[in-house]
Amino acid sequence: MEKIVALCKRRGFIFQSSEIYGGLNGAWDYGPLGVELKRNLKDYWWRCMTQLRDDIVGFDGSILMNRAVWQASGHEATFSDPMVDCKTCKARFRADQLESSVCGQKPSKSPATCGGELTEPRTFNLMFKTYVGPVQDDSAITYLRPETAQAMFVQFKNVLEVSRKKLPFGIAQIGKAFRNEINPRNFTFRSREFEQMEVEFFVKPDTGFEWLDKWLEERLTWYEAIGIPRGKIHVLTVPDADRAFYSKGTYDLEYEFPFGVQELEGIAYRTDYDLKQHQEHSGKPLEYFDEESKTKYIPHVVEPSAGVDRTILAVLCEAYAEETVKDEADKEETRVVLRFVPRLAPVKAGIFPLLKNKPELVTRAREVQKLLRPLMKVAYDEAGSIGKRYRRIDEEGTPFGITIDFETHEGAKEASTSAAGTPISAGQKETVTLRHRDSMKQERIAIADLPAYLLAKIA
Amino acid sequence: MEKIVALCKRRGFIFQSSEIYGGLNGAWDYGPLGVELKRNLKDYWWRCMTQLRDDIVGFDGSILMNRAVWQASGHEATFSDPMVDCKTCKARFRADQLESSVCGQKPSKSPATCGGELTEPRTFNLMFKTYVGPVQDDSAITYLRPETAQAMFVQFKNVLEVSRKKLPFGIAQIGKAFRNEINPRNFTFRSREFEQMEVEFFVKPDTGFEWLDKWLEERLTWYEAIGIPRGKIHVLTVPDADRAFYSKGTYDLEYEFPFGVQELEGIAYRTDYDLKQHQEHSGKPLEYFDEESKTKYIPHVVEPSAGVDRTILAVLCEAYAEETVKDEADKEETRVVLRFVPRLAPVKAGIFPLLKNKPELVTRAREVQKLLRPLMKVAYDEAGSIGKRYRRIDEEGTPFGITIDFETHEGAKEASTSAAGTPISAGQKETVTLRHRDSMKQERIAIADLPAYLLAKIA
Repeated sequence: MEKIVALCKRRGFIFQSSEIYGGLNGAWDYGPLGVELKRNLKDYWWRCMTQLRDDIVGFDGSILMNRAVWQASGHEATFSDPMVDCKTCKARFRADQLESSVCGQKPSKSPATCGGELTEPRTFNLMFKTYVGPVQDDSAITYLRPETAQAMFVQFKNVLEVSRKKLPFGIAQIGKAFRNEINPRNFTFRSREFEQMEVEFFVKPDTGFEWLDKWLEERLTWYEAIGIPRGKIHVLTVPDADRAFYSKGTYDLEYEFPFGVQELEGIAYRTDYDLKQHQEHSGKPLEYFDEESKTKYIPHVVEPSAGVDRTILAVLCEAYAEETVKDEADKEETRVVLRFVPRLAPVKAGIFPLLKNKPELVTRAREVQKLLRPLMKVAYDEAGSIGKRYRRIDEEGTPFGITIDFETHEGAKEASTSAAGTPISAGQKETVTLRHRDSMKQERIAIADLPAYLLAKIA
Repeated sequence: MEKIVALCKRRGFIFQSSEIYGGLNGAWDYGPLGVELKRNLKDYWWRCMTQLRDDIVGFDGSILMNRAVWQASGHEATFSDPMVDCKTCKARFRADQLESSVCGQKPSKSPATCGGELTEPRTFNLMFKTYVGPVQDDSAITYLRPETAQAMFVQFKNVLEVSRKKLPFGIAQIGKAFRNEINPRNFTFRSREFEQMEVEFFVKPDTGFEWLDKWLEERLTWYEAIGIPRGKIHVLTVPDADRAFYSKGTYDLEYEFPFGVQELEGIAYRTDYDLKQHQEHSGKPLEYFDEESKTKYIPHVVEPSAGVDRTILAVLCEAYAEETVKDEADKEETRVVLRFVPRLAPVKAGIFPLLKNKPELVTRAREVQKLLRPLMKVAYDEAGSIGKRYRRIDEEGTPFGITIDFETHEGAKEASTSAAGTPISAGQKETVTLRHRDSMKQERIAIADLPAYLLAKIA
């Protein structure tokens, strides 16, 4: 795990938020590569959930909502963790995560744990509170949303009307949520600010379990498409005692992280609990009129809810590999490579003139960049030996390396010097070296064939 | 303006947040069409700022940051508005926006204004405060970021290192920001939760003004590409007295909204103010080593900062049109149409079988949907007369209508009945009716030609 954290910082995937000020516990920034990886992941989820389906529409609700939402949903009263304090060293723990009845804190530079006495558990609400408007009194209180789901429940009627859908139908949303976790930990896995990708799927009351199973299958297929094989996902049927009280059935999809098997996504059959609560508290009808059966009822909900940051972390863990390979001087070295599926890779291709002091190579490389850039994210690089440049894109997870070399001009099948003087002619069927990240195999491909070839690979 | 607000609700562009609970002043939700419009706008900005350029990299910082960031930036001490209260009716106003020295509030059902005496102005900090961690004391205070910019300044060094860029280079970010506005107003224009698209562009100290002008030109061209012509944008050279104290020059790009000429984007030459502040407060060097001149200095910054929600609102205002046209029975009616540029349109094409009770038309229309759906957002619709369906997509801003009619099968050049019985053969060069939103002109196009034709139009 330390290696992954270090790589994330070194290559610009993830930084600690506010790092120069010592950070903010539980908050993270995505650097140039991280933001592209995250965008690709979210875009692919959005595409699968909305563009490619007839039965789900998109939505984007605000983070700040009327406080009444959180009173109706039960979050204000019950969204809390039990917390204990150490009477000796003042460390704080979640009571339900304790491994011992005394304080397990390890002071720095000491292998021994504190061992202090712990207080009785107290409840601690996980919502961040703030005040909206110029007066800080009770009527101005609201919270940063602790989940994106509620916005979709309270707008159910509006969305249903404008989209003219019939059940079963869903609302999809990607957005930030905030939880004041007592102990943020495991890098970005448990953080205080995080992003969710959620569908609230509204179904006829007697079809809830059927849709719960359909969504399980759907989501497992989706994770395969982003490079997380089924064998690495543990499907946990959450036992009755551990389920949220409103849920009649929940699957947790768990991934084998280096720090343990932990939840990536929950698929919950939430029944009609949420809509019923909001109907009752708002006094606004949230029923659905079923034209087939001519009856009115509150739809039931199945919710596949995934964590964006957790999925990114799983993708990074799954992609990370170290291999022993030979360098240009035939010496053994360790190659670090991120084997992202091409559709998620932050950069799709590196574009390299073999030598930076050969204008004919540099010019042609820039032209290849210009050709490909409108179609996908590419990166031009001329610094260092070609071997070093390949290693760099390996670490960044770029699936293709394109090298413009002396063979690039047709008719220059032999080496170096003769080709260097050949003028570049657009009419020729010029080829470049295409190097594959995972196999490290190289092949020659015509420049004209690059767009179609790469687009098919990254789709 | 009322018409645009009503259309936004009716067609599912924008809803009031938490509407069933009476809303939350200054917070808005984007419905199924609104979220697609917003995604298209943000994606196009991202594409122009990062993918198509060598000198800008992307970034995504957290909303919650260490409080020290806002102390260093000056926001904690000075990011405030002067506020006055009416001693009679208790209404609150921004002192700098008052049009009279007495209360101008209009009580409901009365044309007369209150006229009450106002208090002296008091400062009111616009940042939303919250507490991070389990204890609510001063050391736990932080704020929801009031601008996205600071995250890019505090990570300047990290981003510079991982991206191996030389000056001039920029960092681009899209994200939410929050300001506890005293009077949110004008629909989504001045809201408490909003999204920004910002570039912090780092340049050599003596090139600041030059880059300020380059960015002005760049951004005006960009607005044209999203359908806002130069003639509608007022470029205001912000006078010395109105500029932020750290800025040496600022252009405001203002749009002619129905409620007045108001700011869409600010392009500010922020000098080295922000980096200097953070270097001083954090004690971490934020200098740049210039390899050409072998000198070290703090870069200067030019910042084009646009509001996503404001731009969406401008796009909606610019696209909105009402026309008198003739309906199917040759009667005059009013057509409402949103003339979005195709690249921004939430849905690119409506796909319609002429009649829903003709299986051969429905089947073929579904096949056309299947053909186009992987390439762009399309919507299948079979409800109502074809004229009604065209009007519906006009209001939604969909640039193309594709109707599968009896002429669709080749060899059925004549009307209706004979074609209805003809079996669908894949080998034939079938055509459909392509209807253009703006001109309402119709033409015939081969199904096989649709993908390339439409992709070129929406690029």
